[in-house]
Amino acid sequence: MTAQTVRVELAGDGGSDRSYDITVGQGILASVGTLLADAGCRRAVAIADAAVVSSHAEKVVTSLQAAGIETLPIEVASGESSKAAGEAARIWGALAEAAVDRKTHVVAIGGGVVGDLAGFVAATYVRGLAVWQIPTTLVAQVDSAIGGKTGINLPAGKNLVGCFWQPRGVVSDIESLATLPLRELRSGLAEVVKYGMIRDEPFFRWLETHVDEITAATPTAVHHIILTSSRHKAEVVSQDEHETTGLRAILNYGHTFAHAFESATGYGRFLHGEAVSLGMAAAARLACRLGRIDAETAERQDRLLAALGLPIDFANVASSLSTDELLAIMRRDKKAISGQLRFVLPTRLGHVELVDGIDPAAVVDVLAAKA
Amino acid sequence: MTAQTVRVELAGDGGSDRSYDITVGQGILASVGTLLADAGCRRAVAIADAAVVSSHAEKVVTSLQAAGIETLPIEVASGESSKAAGEAARIWGALAEAAVDRKTHVVAIGGGVVGDLAGFVAATYVRGLAVWQIPTTLVAQVDSAIGGKTGINLPAGKNLVGCFWQPRGVVSDIESLATLPLRELRSGLAEVVKYGMIRDEPFFRWLETHVDEITAATPTAVHHIILTSSRHKAEVVSQDEHETTGLRAILNYGHTFAHAFESATGYGRFLHGEAVSLGMAAAARLACRLGRIDAETAERQDRLLAALGLPIDFANVASSLSTDELLAIMRRDKKAISGQLRFVLPTRLGHVELVDGIDPAAVVDVLAAKA
Repeated sequence: MTAQTVRVELAGDGGSDRSYDITVGQGILASVGTLLADAGCRRAVAIADAAVVSSHAEKVVTSLQAAGIETLPIEVASGESSKAAGEAARIWGALAEAAVDRKTHVVAIGGGVVGDLAGFVAATYVRGLAVWQIPTTLVAQVDSAIGGKTGINLPAGKNLVGCFWQPRGVVSDIESLATLPLRELRSGLAEVVKYGMIRDEPFFRWLETHVDEITAATPTAVHHIILTSSRHKAEVVSQDEHETTGLRAILNYGHTFAHAFESATGYGRFLHGEAVSLGMAAAARLACRLGRIDAETAERQDRLLAALGLPIDFANVASSLSTDELLAIMRRDKKAISGQLRFVLPTRLGHVELVDGIDPAAVVDVLAAKA
Repeated sequence: MTAQTVRVELAGDGGSDRSYDITVGQGILASVGTLLADAGCRRAVAIADAAVVSSHAEKVVTSLQAAGIETLPIEVASGESSKAAGEAARIWGALAEAAVDRKTHVVAIGGGVVGDLAGFVAATYVRGLAVWQIPTTLVAQVDSAIGGKTGINLPAGKNLVGCFWQPRGVVSDIESLATLPLRELRSGLAEVVKYGMIRDEPFFRWLETHVDEITAATPTAVHHIILTSSRHKAEVVSQDEHETTGLRAILNYGHTFAHAFESATGYGRFLHGEAVSLGMAAAARLACRLGRIDAETAERQDRLLAALGLPIDFANVASSLSTDELLAIMRRDKKAISGQLRFVLPTRLGHVELVDGIDPAAVVDVLAAKA
């Protein structure tokens, strides 16, 4: 399977073109050095998740060094708790210690945690270093590594601090998924189903008819999934880079509920994709409750998610949590305005809309499985 | 004296015009509320230096509330030590606590410390809040409040962490300068002399012939100084917003030495402008040593700085510090590339150039007053 690229088209910034390529292929980590050298990089900081240092990051570092790029490796502990202000400060200090200059590139190797954290550090160190995203998890390859959202969590909420900072390029090696635990692979599929739900009914149907190949993670199926997802993400980001027109907000389908479930459970119980799966199940039910879709559409989404091994029983999850707390978290969601509830909801398979001023009572009913 | 505006022209971002006005006038703090209300602001966070809360910030907050804008006041301790990661984290937490949403505007009231810190917090909270700069010191009015540089210090160096984040507007009330200690007023004049040196010989001559009015801080002189300085800063920023073409770097004339003096003395001995004055004196001597200007030009600059009450005896300062440490700090200056020494140096009165690869021996000679 030859590597393929998806272009993320972006408006220029004072003459410089900020558009970049996502490269999807098999066994392409060894090509990262050449890619960066061609982009003029002579010095790099490789920030990697501790879990992928020996399996993937060392390949990238070797490739960078072979291309004549002096490389400082920095390891980040696995897990969401690394996406914190203290960890950003530690890495800022390490960059200062190494006398990193503005021409140094940052290379982020790992999943969403490392991509978001390293992206934020790159965005803010000496007012901006070039950053390359080398996602090694499915959720990062199909979603978080693309589009320039960087950030860290605060105790009060996920991703409350961050910047928009586009990478110079994204390299998605489907081979890195081989070392991924099954639960994490499944988790990544939630965002994939999301693209079908929000803007691609044919892709949704392809997913429905290829469940076996997908759960077996055949290279052909995985390649198709990553490439299609990358195209969707790239198109949406190109059209609304800074989430100002409302278009990019459609990517948050399922995420308002998901963030509430993650936050109320201390980020320790669900993987992000699992929370998104629960969140999409809840959002579809809310859309039913509001008469926007019929029950069959919600059930069809539920069936696909469940077939892919993803959790959908959000009511059971909600029953163990405080509804007031869930509502309070949703009200202070980044997308919320003046504490009003705002959701991305489907109107049919392959189409969603951003809906303001949702009645809290409807949300309460949905969470209590009364809708 | 009627208020006057200077426009900072910036490239648009996906259709939205990011250009903004600097308003310079007398007694205009009371107009801030109307300005923000006209810009659609309904909720604000007023981040103020503790030293100006009763003198200026309360006026601004009253004006915001009178315009129907719900305002959360946040106080920041005076002094450079507030420009730190811990203080940013404290304010992020306060914004989360107050459930601040993306439509909330930040209003920064104070000098460079509050402007840079509040600007950084605004740039990074929920990936960007609108920010208004209300500078109450001369150095902030003529320089730091304009142009979108935000940042915090690390133990290893000043402004090592930050973003470019343009304000929605700048309001410079010359009346706020009345409460400014004389030493701080003088400190602000260093950046004013800098504009003369780097791009405006006639203004330099005007400064030379108006030393008495300037040191007496007559409203007419101060108004002319702030307006002229704002125009220069606005023009340079418009032409090179992100310091990519090298043009904006001319604003750093004197600053490579200045940052080294500030850092080596633990940021406690000199006000920023005093360090800049020493730095310009040193840079002019370095330019002499390299045959770029004659001694008379350096002496003319020294005479003006001294007449305005600013320090110029950098050799005396350097003699109490380690030359190796000063050089090490200058090598890791944000503007440095690959540890090479890089300075902005005059070629004549009213013109400077960015010069790479300066021989460290020349810098050592200058610091030892051997040049």
